[in-house]
Amino acid sequence: MAGTRVREASEEDVPLILSLIRELAEYERLSHEVVATEEGLRAGLFGGRPFAEVLIAEQDGSPAGFALFFHNFSTFLGKPGIYLEDLYVKPELRGAGIGKKLLGHLARLAKERGCGRLEWWVLDWNAPSIGFYEKIGAVAMDDWTVYRLAGGALDELASGA
Amino acid sequence: MAGTRVREASEEDVPLILSLIRELAEYERLSHEVVATEEGLRAGLFGGRPFAEVLIAEQDGSPAGFALFFHNFSTFLGKPGIYLEDLYVKPELRGAGIGKKLLGHLARLAKERGCGRLEWWVLDWNAPSIGFYEKIGAVAMDDWTVYRLAGGALDELASGA
Repeated sequence: MAGTRVREASEEDVPLILSLIRELAEYERLSHEVVATEEGLRAGLFGGRPFAEVLIAEQDGSPAGFALFFHNFSTFLGKPGIYLEDLYVKPELRGAGIGKKLLGHLARLAKERGCGRLEWWVLDWNAPSIGFYEKIGAVAMDDWTVYRLAGGALDELASGA
Repeated sequence: MAGTRVREASEEDVPLILSLIRELAEYERLSHEVVATEEGLRAGLFGGRPFAEVLIAEQDGSPAGFALFFHNFSTFLGKPGIYLEDLYVKPELRGAGIGKKLLGHLARLAKERGCGRLEWWVLDWNAPSIGFYEKIGAVAMDDWTVYRLAGGALDELASGA
């Protein structure tokens, strides 16, 4: 099974997906933020209501990387899009086109499913990834900032305080 | 029916939702980007595979604003979150707590559905909204930038070129 193959993940891949998430977090210097468990991933990805989908890239039959994505929705376009939460290729396999194969698979899914856009976030210091994304024609949404509400502030808002 | 009420939108609300989307785009100075149609919204929100959900706020029985949201998924938390695509309150009704009621409803939904986060984007020049969001405890994700791939670049990636 030589070469690169992209396939859809199934429930048996949960331990692999978690280990790849941990590798990605290490690369992003965010390992301290990872509290995901196999149980949580199983419920969220393969439970009664799946919240995201996963593609696995294999190189010569071994795991090489993954993409985790879900659908967003643009009110201005009036149609869904694809949001790429994670894209990861193992460091020793970078530069061989595996990331582009994962993105190409997603772009085809986007067209098949009538989506208008493919979107994701990038850490500002991650110059190699930014260079790659700009090469394929992605545009930085520079005049927007992401806000996040979590923990106690989320609880407080939910309580109506 | 005095006071503020937040309710879930149904298919009959599609014309109202589209008119509120257009009002929001006007406020964001992005009207030229709105190509959404009633047909697109009907298919995307109330079709066989709904991609987003809508809350309508009413003041004294009349439409006052809306929130459109969908689920995202955090691989680091290993659980879903809620992403707020649009939050809009009619200009003449602002400052009366309607936006906070919509967000509070969403925060309760987030807790009920086991979500760890509520997230959204804000235009950097929109100081009134940013002030409001920071007051309720939201945090700016300053070290991330959103990238978008659309149009010809998306087609090209999909074609494997």
